[in-house]
Parts: sequence; structure tokens; C-alpha cells
Amino acid sequence: MELAIGRLPHGKRNLITDVPGVRVGHCTVDQGDAHTGVTVVLPPGEHLFDHKLTAACQVFNGYGKTLGLVQVEELGTLETPIALTGTLNVGRVHDALVSWMLANGSASPITSVNPVVCECNDSRLSDIALRPVGEQEVFAAIESASADFALGAVGAGRGTLCYGLKGGIGSSSRLMDFDGKTYTLGVLVQSNYGASADFNRAELPANLSESDQGSIILIVATDLPLSCRQLKRVIRRTSVAMARLGSYIGHGSGEIAVGFTTAPRQAEGSFEHAQILREDLLNQPFRAAGEAAEEAILLSMLCAGPDRELSGRRVRSLREYLAKKDDK
Amino acid sequence: MELAIGRLPHGKRNLITDVPGVRVGHCTVDQGDAHTGVTVVLPPGEHLFDHKLTAACQVFNGYGKTLGLVQVEELGTLETPIALTGTLNVGRVHDALVSWMLANGSASPITSVNPVVCECNDSRLSDIALRPVGEQEVFAAIESASADFALGAVGAGRGTLCYGLKGGIGSSSRLMDFDGKTYTLGVLVQSNYGASADFNRAELPANLSESDQGSIILIVATDLPLSCRQLKRVIRRTSVAMARLGSYIGHGSGEIAVGFTTAPRQAEGSFEHAQILREDLLNQPFRAAGEAAEEAILLSMLCAGPDRELSGRRVRSLREYLAKKDDK
Amino acid sequence: MELAIGRLPHGKRNLITDVPGVRVGHCTVDQGDAHTGVTVVLPPGEHLFDHKLTAACQVFNGYGKTLGLVQVEELGTLETPIALTGTLNVGRVHDALVSWMLANGSASPITSVNPVVCECNDSRLSDIALRPVGEQEVFAAIESASADFALGAVGAGRGTLCYGLKGGIGSSSRLMDFDGKTYTLGVLVQSNYGASADFNRAELPANLSESDQGSIILIVATDLPLSCRQLKRVIRRTSVAMARLGSYIGHGSGEIAVGFTTAPRQAEGSFEHAQILREDLLNQPFRAAGEAAEEAILLSMLCAGPDRELSGRRVRSLREYLAKKDDK
Amino acid sequence: MELAIGRLPHGKRNLITDVPGVRVGHCTVDQGDAHTGVTVVLPPGEHLFDHKLTAACQVFNGYGKTLGLVQVEELGTLETPIALTGTLNVGRVHDALVSWMLANGSASPITSVNPVVCECNDSRLSDIALRPVGEQEVFAAIESASADFALGAVGAGRGTLCYGLKGGIGSSSRLMDFDGKTYTLGVLVQSNYGASADFNRAELPANLSESDQGSIILIVATDLPLSCRQLKRVIRRTSVAMARLGSYIGHGSGEIAVGFTTAPRQAEGSFEHAQILREDLLNQPFRAAGEAAEEAILLSMLCAGPDRELSGRRVRSLREYLAKKDDK
Repeated sequence: MELAIGRLPHGKRNLITDVPGVRVGHCTVDQGDAHTGVTVVLPPGEHLFDHKLTAACQVFNGYGKTLGLVQVEELGTLETPIALTGTLNVGRVHDALVSWMLANGSASPITSVNPVVCECNDSRLSDIALRPVGEQEVFAAIESASADFALGAVGAGRGTLCYGLKGGIGSSSRLMDFDGKTYTLGVLVQSNYGASADFNRAELPANLSESDQGSIILIVATDLPLSCRQLKRVIRRTSVAMARLGSYIGHGSGEIAVGFTTAPRQAEGSFEHAQILREDLLNQPFRAAGEAAEEAILLSMLCAGPDRELSGRRVRSLREYLAKKDDK
Repeated sequence: MELAIGRLPHGKRNLITDVPGVRVGHCTVDQGDAHTGVTVVLPPGEHLFDHKLTAACQVFNGYGKTLGLVQVEELGTLETPIALTGTLNVGRVHDALVSWMLANGSASPITSVNPVVCECNDSRLSDIALRPVGEQEVFAAIESASADFALGAVGAGRGTLCYGLKGGIGSSSRLMDFDGKTYTLGVLVQSNYGASADFNRAELPANLSESDQGSIILIVATDLPLSCRQLKRVIRRTSVAMARLGSYIGHGSGEIAVGFTTAPRQAEGSFEHAQILREDLLNQPFRAAGEAAEEAILLSMLCAGPDRELSGRRVRSLREYLAKKDDK
Repeated sequence: MELAIGRLPHGKRNLITDVPGVRVGHCTVDQGDAHTGVTVVLPPGEHLFDHKLTAACQVFNGYGKTLGLVQVEELGTLETPIALTGTLNVGRVHDALVSWMLANGSASPITSVNPVVCECNDSRLSDIALRPVGEQEVFAAIESASADFALGAVGAGRGTLCYGLKGGIGSSSRLMDFDGKTYTLGVLVQSNYGASADFNRAELPANLSESDQGSIILIVATDLPLSCRQLKRVIRRTSVAMARLGSYIGHGSGEIAVGFTTAPRQAEGSFEHAQILREDLLNQPFRAAGEAAEEAILLSMLCAGPDRELSGRRVRSLREYLAKKDDK
Repeated sequence: MELAIGRLPHGKRNLITDVPGVRVGHCTVDQGDAHTGVTVVLPPGEHLFDHKLTAACQVFNGYGKTLGLVQVEELGTLETPIALTGTLNVGRVHDALVSWMLANGSASPITSVNPVVCECNDSRLSDIALRPVGEQEVFAAIESASADFALGAVGAGRGTLCYGLKGGIGSSSRLMDFDGKTYTLGVLVQSNYGASADFNRAELPANLSESDQGSIILIVATDLPLSCRQLKRVIRRTSVAMARLGSYIGHGSGEIAVGFTTAPRQAEGSFEHAQILREDLLNQPFRAAGEAAEEAILLSMLCAGPDRELSGRRVRSLREYLAKKDDK
């Protein structure tokens, strides 16, 4: 299996954190039957509520419980870190982000805030009813956030499956040049989708996962100046990643992308000044989004070792299948 | 001010609970600086998760934090009670609904569920950071649910303002006849929007509320057989209510409608049999939705007495202004 | 009936052409049983294809045949004049705009162009199957375009009905101040909707039009710098106009708004520089859109005299009902 | 290159016309510099306007001029044949379909109709300004419609390019079993998209087409009973086809799917009875849509021979590249 996806160069770390200022933190929970966690993507800067970022979201398949998209869609802005977790944790993680924002989000008191919380269903590896991710775990993830972070079965990826193999958190980045300046686009995924028989980079037994369900979340960050409309067009291209790896976008798989740009907007009196990319130059970030998403999914699988479902059934790692293949 | 809105007859109670089987419950919180609460709308039947209802949502202005709409939009179904509360409570109420559903939602164990939680910002009357609405309050609201329920400053309407006057929970219903059978459409609102100077049913001082912000939630229930596409068309007509009362749909006001029909769908093998209204007959439920929404908003104001903001400032009731007018 | 709608001042002409550079032209067709026409709204400047304007569209009720919205939605730009006509003419008018654009739209040859063509159904006054509006009529309308133009039963308003009375073309404008500069927002409507019994500014016999059908088109122009997302929010507020006048947005009435701003965007290398209004200041253009739309609809009716349907049945003018009222 | 895409069996003809009653007709125009045409997809039955079919549309990338989607989206129905043609022809083809519908669409006179007209830009092979497709050509295509029809450079595919090679009309079908009955889903594409360097089934020189632009239209027909919401979900899966073949969905490529089901709905009094597939069984039609779309695109290329652009530049056929490959 070739891992170098596409033709654009990747950034230094090949992570979403190649976008300057973006940080990622995990908190992984392993206690009793709980094998889950939370991952946070932190945009750069203090007081995010006071410096909202241009943002967009795209629902490919809405069989999912992601919270906060109504306002992102209307206003085209992000005003909190983005959290990813297991499905039934979303309410608690939402509340934890509210707590964190009340304490850290603004230089002034705030009475309203719109956390974005995404999820995948990790109930095959974790007792999802336990909901062990709350304020403590979310705060720990935020505090640990850094440009360097682990991939695989950590944080929100602790309990996920991808094409029936162990999935998790994956990330990749791409570089683009415009007018002599280099811009970065990075993707972070929580991979938890796909039927085994559909995967096209290794031959997997169909019974690992017979149905394409479970969801995938794709977070896109960039420092390229884009409007929220353009950003929506860009993140929409992450859908090619799942298709390329063999999926038909299953009914039971909530597939959702959320993106933001760190490019600043300048207020001046009643107006804002915004720089945006020329529309006819969007093919480059489109490609970057698709390439980075595909590579991020593969890395989420390659960085995750074998595991065991609550039922006792073994969960295999993609690495095992690739090794087997190389043996032949 | 004339209260009889429109020309369709209303149901026995003139409440959303005129739709057979629908119940509404409140839990009001008044402790210290917390003056907030939760209101639940319960569709009929046991094990809602096993008997999902055809549902739809419509965002008129998405500056709001309503949770759960992604899945309603994709699948056209509702699988939990709908809860309404104050803005920053939504995560906790979401989590409480998850708890309730795990215990009561299905005849079989469930590992995924999509609560719908709507909100208005009640921070002028309540210290919104306290977030005192959790599992206990949500369960209490559900347990108290009944066909008879209070309107005005109760439950999720405890701390809301409407056109600068005291707002709250309002409800109204309309009856329609098709093929010799009577069908009911009911609306419940959590009213918290509107600039005073825009209100057109009484002359209000502009300084009561200078800006149209705060949100309004409109829940629509009916027993008329409709597809989710038709239901979306129906609930979209509730927007005429705010316009009729003088609003221009303010930037800061999240305005969202959610609707469901209790008309059953029959499964048979791989298929479902659904009966739906002929498209050319939709004007009747369109009118019903608009009339009931307008009357529900007015009733939310008329049923709420005067109050006081956290700042100490008095909040007047619409009843006071109408009385004054009658004095002249 | 009071005509001064709302509280914002209107521009010099109280027409959409108060927006600097915007022009409107009509071509009215009265030949045999054809009583129809075309109205064009021309953005300022030469070579519109080379200087696309920021634009948005909003479908309130999609039972309509408006052409060209797919691209407006995706790219947020307008690249042709907007034409309005009778329903079955839209294909021919589309083709005529293609011809006009090939000849006049660009400094370079073009091989693709996206005309926006809106419509109402004028079949009660005009034999709609005749489709007499083609290249000659569209070109004539464009050539006649000017800042001064007639309202009422002209151009695309020749054969329309509104609340069962004679409708037609209406227009109104509003002025707004930001940072010491005055900006204009104008609306032009082609009014053809509404059940007579719903109209609330005069008491009309219900049998003039028993059903709310036929459509209304609302074109919004402004010189206020807005992003396409903001513009969509602004034009969405025109829906309050129909609600205020008594409509519940009938099933059979295609209700569609299209808007553009003439505020320029500056290209520089790979980027564009755009100025946009601060989001929290949008209430002013929201109000402007709602007020101007309502006044435009009323003016479309007041400027149209009585007429006769193809069936021979009389069509009354709103002026007659208001006169009658004044007589009492 | 393997052509057998996926794992579901195809129908007898491996064409969209395997869906019982569906017919396809072409009219190809080769006169002077015009090398274009029109293709029509005819749903079964007489008087389509009187027996509207459940339908849906999905815009993947809206840089396109497809006409008629506003109403399909609102009402979920199709009331005319679907026509495909070259970009600048759409107005004339729309008008031709109006003519045809007035004469043939209904048992009663009609005063309104919503033709669906899709397009790709064929300006590299055809002088697009000529617009030679009108009533005569559309009527000829309809009259020639049959279950058997040609693929490749015919009708609306006469002048299209795909990944820089000759594209055109392609079609494929898939069979599904539910409750012991076999259902068919068929796809017809007008292929005109893709950068050569992205194509992954043969190694192409990048300079054949350096940019992913030009559009692709995907028409989906089925006899499986689906609601319009389900149908939208199904046709959304055709997007995997372009991704699988290497595309990132280019900025300049309008990518649009339109689908309908021939499954009847029964009216009874004020209601309609509709049978629809159980939601949890949708993975089968999802897969069918993706597989058939991918195979249809490949067939559109394999069935098209080499050609020449207006500029004189040679257009190669995919067959030539595959032959070359086999030579090695």
C-alpha cells in the first residue's frame, strides 16, 4: 500500500498542526469498560470568542449527532475549540466546552456560546452508556494541546473502528503556494466508518465489519484566506477520501466535515476587511483537502494497533494485514 | 388587541396537546439568581426510539444553539422527546435526555440516540452561567407531562422576554377536516425575541428591548399524515407569525421550528406503507401552522405576569399595556 | 391604508434604481390574447461577466420555475442582468439573455454564462402558451433600461394578479447610514400571489382569488458591502412583506428572492480584497429589505389599474377598493 | 483496466433503460462548427404532468446551468422528460420541452410546467454560440426514444471531453432484491469533467486537460419505491464515481445528479398511499448508484472514438490508451 497520497507536498509534521498556531490535545479514558476519550482542535490565539474565525461545515451523511452546526452555517464563524468524542458523550462535552469558554473564551463576560462537538459511535470497544468524558477530561485535553500529538487509538479515536480494523485519529497536511507565499491546509479525522469488503488497499475478511456504519469526522484547518462559502467548497472535497478508499457512504455512517481558516479579518468602523482567494484558484485547496483527508484516514488506521471489542472479539490493525501481504 | 387569530377553529384546549397523545411537561427553576427551566414536548407512545416519528426542522435564522437537527434533516425522523431550555443548559439537557432514553426509550438496549434540544437565551432574568437544569429537572419535566400544562413564565419560558415584555411558553391549536375526519395541528413556542418598537399590537416604549434578539423556538405537532418534506413546508409557515407581530427577524435571534406528525407508518417486510396528504391540499395545514404560531406567541405573553431582570429593572407584562390601553 | 411602511427613509425615487447605477427596463407585450412582458434589472457597469457582482438567492417556496439559481448559490455571484417574465417564457428569455451576453457581456469571447430568469404565472390575463417574449423583447427591455421606470401593469407585471386584484411591478428603496456614509437598498417585485380573503389592508371579496398561488419575485439591490452569506440573510427578510400583508405563503405560489450588491471587490494577485459590513450591524439592512419589500408590493398594486381576464371577468384595482373605503 | 465495477449484478442491457418503461433518445447535431446535441430520458407512461414521479436532485458542485431544480427540490416530483444538452442550448431546450409538454404532457390544458434541462460545456469541440438545438431536435430525440440507445459521442455527449479524452453518454444498471422481487437502478451520465493527470485507470499526458472543468450530469432512474428524501440520499452516492476515477471535483465542473423513481403513488380521496423502502435497507441502492455511476462514466469514454477539437487539436479515445497499454 502506497501511503504518499496525491501530489502536493505535506507540511513539516504532516499534521493539521502544520497550520500555524493550531494545536491538538487528547484525553484518553480507559477505565473498566470505558475505552473512549476526547480530542480537541484548538485554533490559534487567546479569547476565541472575541476573535471568531471564518468557518464552514458540510454534512455528507447526516446520520450523526454533531452539535453546533446551525450557527456555523448561519454566521460562517467558529467561536470555540472543536471537540470530538464518542456519540453519547456529546452533551457532556458540550457542557464542558461551555464551562471552559466562560472561563477562558473572552476578555468580557459571555452569556452565549456555540461549542462545536463532533462524534463517532465507539460502542463496539467501549460501554457507550457510561459517558465518562466530562469537564475534567475536556479541560485535560485542552491543556495538553500542542503542535505535536499522537495519532491512532487515542482521545476520540480510542474506541473507533475503520473498515472493521482499528481506526482512530489521523492527520495530514498539504502545502500550497500563492503569490510567493506558502499556505498550509491540514485535516484531522476521527475514523469509524466502512465495510471491510469495501476497503481497497488491503484484502480484508468481510466479516470484520459487514456494514458501512459508525461515522467519520473530518476537521479541516488552513491559513489560506477564504470566505466561509469558499471554505465550504473546500471541505466538501474531503468526501473524495472515503470514496477513494472504497466506501459508498453507508446509511449508518454520519459523515461530517467542519473547517476553519486562521486568516484574520480586520474590523474598521462598521466594516470588516477580508482578503479571500480568487475563486478560479480554488482547485489547489480542493486538491489539498482531498489528498490530506485520504492520507489522514490511512494514518488513523496505520497508527492504531490491534485491540479487543467489549464482546472479546479481536480487532485487527491495518498493519497486520499489510505485514501479512508483505510476507507473501 | 384581538386574540382570535385567523379563521380555522382551535381544538378543545387550544394547546399543542390537542394533538392526540401529545403531552407537555415543565420543570421551573427558581433558586438564587437562577430563573430558568426546561419544557418537554412528548410525542405519544412508549419506546419512541422503536417507533420514530416523521419529523422536520427549519432554521429561519441560525444564530442559535439548538442540538440534534443534523439527523432530523437527514432521516426525517424524531426519536426522542423534544426539550426546550435556556441557552447554556443545552449540553446538560442533551445528556439528561440520553439518560432518559437509555432507560425508557426502547424495548432493546440502544447505543446511539439523537436528542433534540432547543433553546432561548434567558440571561436578562437568569444567571445563565449557573446551568441548573440537569437530569433531575429534565426527568421531573417528563414525569409531569400531561395534556394540560401551564403557559407563560414556566419551564423553558421562565426567564424569557418577548418584544421587551415578559415572554414564555405559549401554545395554540387548529383543526382541519379531510375526508370527513378531523385532524389537529398544534404549536408550542418559547418566545424570547423582538424589539419593543416593532411590536404592533400595543404601543410599547422602545427602550424595553432595543434590539431584536434572543430567539424563538416553534414546535409543531400534528396527527395529519404528512411526509417529512411536507412537514418541512408546513412548519416553514410558522415564520409568518413573527412577521405579523412586527418583527423583521433580527440578526441576534435564533429562530427555529421543529415539527413532527404522530401519523403512523406501517412496516411490511422490506417496505413501509405511508399515507400522506395530497400536495395540493397543503394550504390548510399551512394556514393552521401560521395561525397557531401567531396565537401561541401572543398567549405566551398574555399568560406571563410582570417580573424583574437580574439588574433589578422591571419587566412588564403585555397585560399591563393592554389594561392601560383599555383605561383610555 | 397607510403606505409609508416602516421607519427608514426612502431614496430619491423610492425605486430600486436609487441604488447608484442600477437601471430597470420593461418591454410590454399586448397582442391578441398575449398580455405579458419582460422586465430587466441591470446592475451598473459594462461587461458584467468580467465584473461579477456578489449575489445571493433565497427560495421561500420553490413551486416556481426561476432559472439560474444553482450557480448563484454555489459561487455567490451574478454575471448577467436579471430578467423577469411570465412562466412559460423563461426558456426563451434565458436564450435571449445568452444572446445579449455573447454580444455585450464581456471584453473577451465567452463560452458559458448563467442568466438569472425569474417568473410569475400570468395565465389568467394572458394566453401563456403563446410565449411571445423573445430576443427582440428582451433586447428592447435592456435598451430602454433607465433609473426611471414605470410601476404597475408593465413588463413582467403586465398580466399578474395580487390578492385577486391587479398586481404588477412594484419598487421601493430605503437609506441606511454607516460611518457617515449613506447606503441604499432597493427592492423590485413582480407581484402575483395571495388569496383575496387574506389581504389585510382592504376588505376584498374572497372570490377574487380563492387560493394563494401564482408566485412573487423579489429582487434586492444594494450598494452596501456585504458578503454573499450576509446578502442571503438580508434578502431572506423580504419574506416578512408577504406575511405582513396577510399571506400564509400558499402552496401554489413560487416565492423567490434574488439579491446583489454593487460594492466592488478588488483583485490583487491571487487574492481579492473585500469589505463587508460587521455582522452585528445587519439589523439595519434586514429592516430595509423587509420595509422596502412590503412597500414595493403595495405599490405594485396601487400603480396597476383595473383590467380584464381572458375569460372576460373583471380584474379590480386596489385603488378602487381604497376609493370605495374613503367614500364611506 | 477492469470494467466490471462493484459487486451487484447489472440488468439485461446494462443501461438506465433496464428500469422498466424508461426510454432514452438522442438527437445529434453535426453541421458546420456545431458538434453537439440533445439526449432525453423519458420516464414511463403517458401524460407525465398528470402522473408526476417522485424525484430528487443533488448539486455536488453548482458551477452549472441546469434548469428546473428549484421545483424538484420543493415538491419532490418530476413532471417532464429530462433533457441534457450543451451549456448555451439550455434555454432553447427548455422552451422546446414546454412546447412538447403543452402538446403531449397532460390530458387537460396546462398553464405551467417545470422542464428539467441539464448541461455540460462542449465548447472545445463545438461552436457553442451557435445553439443549434431547438424544438425540432428535442422532438426528434423524444420521438426516437427507446430502451436501446447508443452510448459515446452521441446526443448531448457529441462534443464532451472526460479527463481530456473523448467523453459522452454512458449508462449502466444494477439489480437489487427485496422480498423476493428484483428492482433495478440505472444511471445515465453526460461526462465532461476531469483533469487528465488525475485519471487513475490509464496513464494520460497531463496536457490533454490540465484543469478539472466542464461538468458531469448523472441521471438516476429506479423502480424501487423510495421517498424523495431517500432518493436524494441515493443519488448523492453517485459522487463516489468521480472520486474513484481520480477527480477532486474541480471548481469549474458543474456536477449535478437528478433522480426519479417510477414506483407509483396511489391517490385516495385527500390522501396518497406510498410504499417506501425501509431506511435501514438503503445501503443496497446506495451501492447500486455508486457502482452504476462509475461504470457509466467509463462506458461513456470507452464508447467514444477519437475526435478533433475546433482548434484542430486531436482528441484521443480511452480505447487508444488501453490498446497502447495492452501492447506493452
